[in-house]
Amino acid sequence: MVWRVPDNDNRPRHICAVCGTVFYDNPKIVAGCIPVWEEQILLCKRAIEPRYGLWTLPAGFMENGETASEAAARETWEEAVTQVDISDLFVVFNLPQINQVYMMFLANLSTCDFSPGDESLECKLYYENEIPWPELAFPTITHTLKFYFRDRDGGAFKFRSADIVREKGESLLFHRRSIPEVVT
Amino acid sequence: MVWRVPDNDNRPRHICAVCGTVFYDNPKIVAGCIPVWEEQILLCKRAIEPRYGLWTLPAGFMENGETASEAAARETWEEAVTQVDISDLFVVFNLPQINQVYMMFLANLSTCDFSPGDESLECKLYYENEIPWPELAFPTITHTLKFYFRDRDGGAFKFRSADIVREKGESLLFHRRSIPEVVT
Repeated sequence: MVWRVPDNDNRPRHICAVCGTVFYDNPKIVAGCIPVWEEQILLCKRAIEPRYGLWTLPAGFMENGETASEAAARETWEEAVTQVDISDLFVVFNLPQINQVYMMFLANLSTCDFSPGDESLECKLYYENEIPWPELAFPTITHTLKFYFRDRDGGAFKFRSADIVREKGESLLFHRRSIPEVVT
Repeated sequence: MVWRVPDNDNRPRHICAVCGTVFYDNPKIVAGCIPVWEEQILLCKRAIEPRYGLWTLPAGFMENGETASEAAARETWEEAVTQVDISDLFVVFNLPQINQVYMMFLANLSTCDFSPGDESLECKLYYENEIPWPELAFPTITHTLKFYFRDRDGGAFKFRSADIVREKGESLLFHRRSIPEVVT
């Protein structure tokens, strides 16, 4: 494997030294959802690194052949062994420092049967006042839930897109990272 | 390079036979925009395959280290040598058969100076009634422009997400491909 600029390109890529195949490494989509059952949200306690033992919404890397909503439903099945009706796309978060784009959907649990999949230690329904905020796995999950509860209180869900940037050990949320306005 | 299921995974991946590096191939994001100047839209005539000689909105593969809106602005620079003010995310299209997710933004040209970049034969501003509909390069571009003009006529732009699926030689637009309702 070599690292050089292919013909007709403008940046270096991984190229197989034997067969010449170029392996493009581009941002990956993490697709997930907010599974709701009677005002409660289903969270999963992670059985894998990173953030082993912390709580997350079901989400994971979108695979080839899927749509983003199909990926969100598959990840919910893999992490919580339950079916969801995926509804509208709710938030898109760019995480340029780790080359990820989160796409989180509104969703309803089809039943209240669920159980931890291979990647979860435990799955549990939480009312808003029970959410374990300090034990959430990722800033993307915290912000998704904050936007969700804010919109639910306001009576209407509104699509949002934002950038999450890590600066001096803190994760900051911007409408756009080039514009110095932090979303609160 | 071999093709097998890595440890702790559930599907085959490209793995370097020498060093064991796993190369994940996931859906790629194509980021672009609708560059507007005084009611006109900037289109670029493609100087590259696929669809050499047909017209497109500036768009291309998002690269590591970027946000989607930064990628859209960079692609506009590369294809039309002009700066845009990127505004809201307007449409997300899933293309599961070719492993792409389009993210198209509303945008305004900062100036009306532009010229064809390396990937364009020509760049031109079009009023709605001049758009060369039969010569647009991709269904994603056609649908983006249709949604744009519909919302502009209606006085408000509304975020949309949809799936574009190829069936019997035709590209069909669905709210969700699992739901048999075609978006018109």
